Amino acid sequence: MEQIKVLLNDDEIPRQWYNLAADLPSPPLPPLAPDGTPITPEMLAPVFPMNLIEQEVSPQRWIDIPEEILALLTIWRPSPLFRARRLERALGTPARIYYKHEGMSPPGSHKPNTAVAQAWYNKQFGVKRVVTETGAGQWGSALAFASALVGLECLVFMVRVSFDQKPYRRLMMEAWGCNCIPSPSKETQAGRTILQQDPESPGSLGIAISEAVETAVSDGSGQTRYSLGSVLNHVLLHQTVIGLEAKKQLEKIGEKQVDVVIGCVGGGSNFAGLAFPFLYDKICGANIEVVPVEPTSCPTLTRAPFVYDHGDTARMTPLLAMHSLGHSFVPAPIHAGGLRYHGVAPLVSHAAMEGLIAPRSYSQLRCFEAAVQWARTEGYIPAPETSHALAAVVDEAIKAREEGQERVILFNWSGHGLLDLASYDAFFRGKLTDYVLPEEDLKRAMAEFAGHPKAELHKEG
Amino acid sequence: MEQIKVLLNDDEIPRQWYNLAADLPSPPLPPLAPDGTPITPEMLAPVFPMNLIEQEVSPQRWIDIPEEILALLTIWRPSPLFRARRLERALGTPARIYYKHEGMSPPGSHKPNTAVAQAWYNKQFGVKRVVTETGAGQWGSALAFASALVGLECLVFMVRVSFDQKPYRRLMMEAWGCNCIPSPSKETQAGRTILQQDPESPGSLGIAISEAVETAVSDGSGQTRYSLGSVLNHVLLHQTVIGLEAKKQLEKIGEKQVDVVIGCVGGGSNFAGLAFPFLYDKICGANIEVVPVEPTSCPTLTRAPFVYDHGDTARMTPLLAMHSLGHSFVPAPIHAGGLRYHGVAPLVSHAAMEGLIAPRSYSQLRCFEAAVQWARTEGYIPAPETSHALAAVVDEAIKAREEGQERVILFNWSGHGLLDLASYDAFFRGKLTDYVLPEEDLKRAMAEFAGHPKAELHKEG
Repeated sequence: MEQIKVLLNDDEIPRQWYNLAADLPSPPLPPLAPDGTPITPEMLAPVFPMNLIEQEVSPQRWIDIPEEILALLTIWRPSPLFRARRLERALGTPARIYYKHEGMSPPGSHKPNTAVAQAWYNKQFGVKRVVTETGAGQWGSALAFASALVGLECLVFMVRVSFDQKPYRRLMMEAWGCNCIPSPSKETQAGRTILQQDPESPGSLGIAISEAVETAVSDGSGQTRYSLGSVLNHVLLHQTVIGLEAKKQLEKIGEKQVDVVIGCVGGGSNFAGLAFPFLYDKICGANIEVVPVEPTSCPTLTRAPFVYDHGDTARMTPLLAMHSLGHSFVPAPIHAGGLRYHGVAPLVSHAAMEGLIAPRSYSQLRCFEAAVQWARTEGYIPAPETSHALAAVVDEAIKAREEGQERVILFNWSGHGLLDLASYDAFFRGKLTDYVLPEEDLKRAMAEFAGHPKAELHKEG
Repeated sequence: MEQIKVLLNDDEIPRQWYNLAADLPSPPLPPLAPDGTPITPEMLAPVFPMNLIEQEVSPQRWIDIPEEILALLTIWRPSPLFRARRLERALGTPARIYYKHEGMSPPGSHKPNTAVAQAWYNKQFGVKRVVTETGAGQWGSALAFASALVGLECLVFMVRVSFDQKPYRRLMMEAWGCNCIPSPSKETQAGRTILQQDPESPGSLGIAISEAVETAVSDGSGQTRYSLGSVLNHVLLHQTVIGLEAKKQLEKIGEKQVDVVIGCVGGGSNFAGLAFPFLYDKICGANIEVVPVEPTSCPTLTRAPFVYDHGDTARMTPLLAMHSLGHSFVPAPIHAGGLRYHGVAPLVSHAAMEGLIAPRSYSQLRCFEAAVQWARTEGYIPAPETSHALAAVVDEAIKAREEGQERVILFNWSGHGLLDLASYDAFFRGKLTDYVLPEEDLKRAMAEFAGHPKAELHKEG
């Protein structure tokens, strides 16, 4: 019988996370205060628990995963590695297409990989409540799930356009006992300011982050902390179990060389989770093409400059060195809510600047076409975010066919789309449009960086 | 590290289905025409393809699973066997609680186990289109998924109350290319008759079955067949992969004796799928308590008589020997739509009459309480149907604690509730009520059986 998946047992789960910061050709650029001075760990203490801040700034290549976190991860991990044989046949490609199925987790995406780690570290540190923001709801539901399991209160600010489009994700958070509020809200100064300017604001991840951070730092009890589902180093770190498992699984079936690694990119965490362990090989000399895929409506890696910018709209976060469309940028309301972020993880941006990764962008309709083809061949219905990776996978597989090459393609199937079915409905009814960011919007965004410190890699030699 | 799941590889999937009909202490009662004469395979030919009819009447204990069906099953099977250690600790029970996680399939329930088999047999037989009914949408989405994979057209009549309450399941069917219509509809004579009597009819599985069967048999091309998601022998047969896998998995971890096997029951297929292979052991002398759990609003096994009755409201199906509340019975609109069926599988009914199984019923609120406790300890959000099994599991675990007994409980986690979150919302807002079938409704139903042939087991000796 044709094998289509490779499993690992509970005790084969990776015992350490991989930290790309240890291996980048030039040192990562530190977060800065608006005046250009570096942010110290102490300055972040009102926002994050110190154990996570230590991970954020760690230069160590390998970081041990505590036993208690491994126990939480095994609720759904190791995730299966699938071979997409049915899609391969449908495309008539000689390529071998593998994917990590991250949709098996209770909330249905890769997000719990870091949610359970963050919840556990917060609990360890004595925190009673975590606050966060969410776009499509993948991250909010992951933190709600993790909080229920470790016994934390959880408050989530959900971007209003998703709150309205995707009621089921809110209901999921509530099933796990979490409080979910649409953002912009009247609960915070940041939210009230936005609502004054535009009472109909669809919201954005940038705005919701401002609200969540404000709530955390303004809680006088000192028992609330903020939690972020992407972008930061420690978040990407926690996701590397994906790529580390994939390596073990490929080895198990004797697949020695991966040619292309693909993941969709919003903040960058699912992409990094799969890709960073392979970037290690690439830095060591392996010939691997690593492709982050983003929407044409929010093209950070493909079109935005590498700058120091805030992670949020109200400029409450430090300046991060990253590709950014400007902290006040509000992306078009595409259905891949998780990809609607003005910036992208500093480590991913850095890898792009080093030429280690080759970003691509796709428009919404092409992605939904690929998603429907996937559902009807491979069976699983992908999230709109995941469909961006799929579009690139299909193109790579067709290229392999045209070139007659037996390429090995690996990608991250970051989550299922069962709670995003309204977007499929809109697609079938011809109600979706493509969005490509106009050049003038990009120029307008550039003006925001005028007063910021310059972001430049410090190449040795 | 504590192991919480037991996996099987693709090549460890069972190669044969188990047929309980071969081992029942007294012979199964055949389906009958209204005049009391037995139904012949030829009479079923306009409804089902002959290869499935042969399975329906097969007396063989083991039936080979074709390689092509195994390939389809491995898309999500073997399913993991989990140990619910977190719930065990929350309940402080010495019981060991194991469950088969059938929610990992693309549509999210156990239903694809038979859907892929039925779709494949229909395709083999030259059928071009399959027609079916669905309650909560679990079965309809499973057949839509299977049809997409083998290349069949698919038409689904969905019980209106679920069609309205659960739009996402309809959207899921459409994502797989299936046509889904609310029932009662104006497309069939059966539907039009019901709508004349009650234009606001919430529908029922019995009505929807009538519509689907009528559509199949009245298609002049001869290329349409009907497909049923539960009740019939061949459907239960296909589900036995669940119990057969569970046995392998328990053996792998040295768990020698299961004390209690639990599953929720609507038509009976997920219960049978897990339980029948264990009933084989019980018939051979093992001491196992086997518990089907049904809603108090639709208490077939616990309160209805064992009779010959039609499987559908319009009396298009043969008479089946089963526990039935009467073919015109319309159950209260509980959220566990998949358990709203007036009858229950003949093989399950037969096992009940033989005293092989010990049915129980639970009311809706108690089930949702158990579901929420489950979600917040074990992580996965169960379907409302599955919550009925959970309520019994919790009771069994508490009983083990009170008796100080190390019992081994195994149950079928038949599907996730991500598309049923509106029902959790209603539960949290206090909008759900319990329904217990009034005695007078039961008596009224009894009148329906007056003219039917008597159903009596033929005990040997």
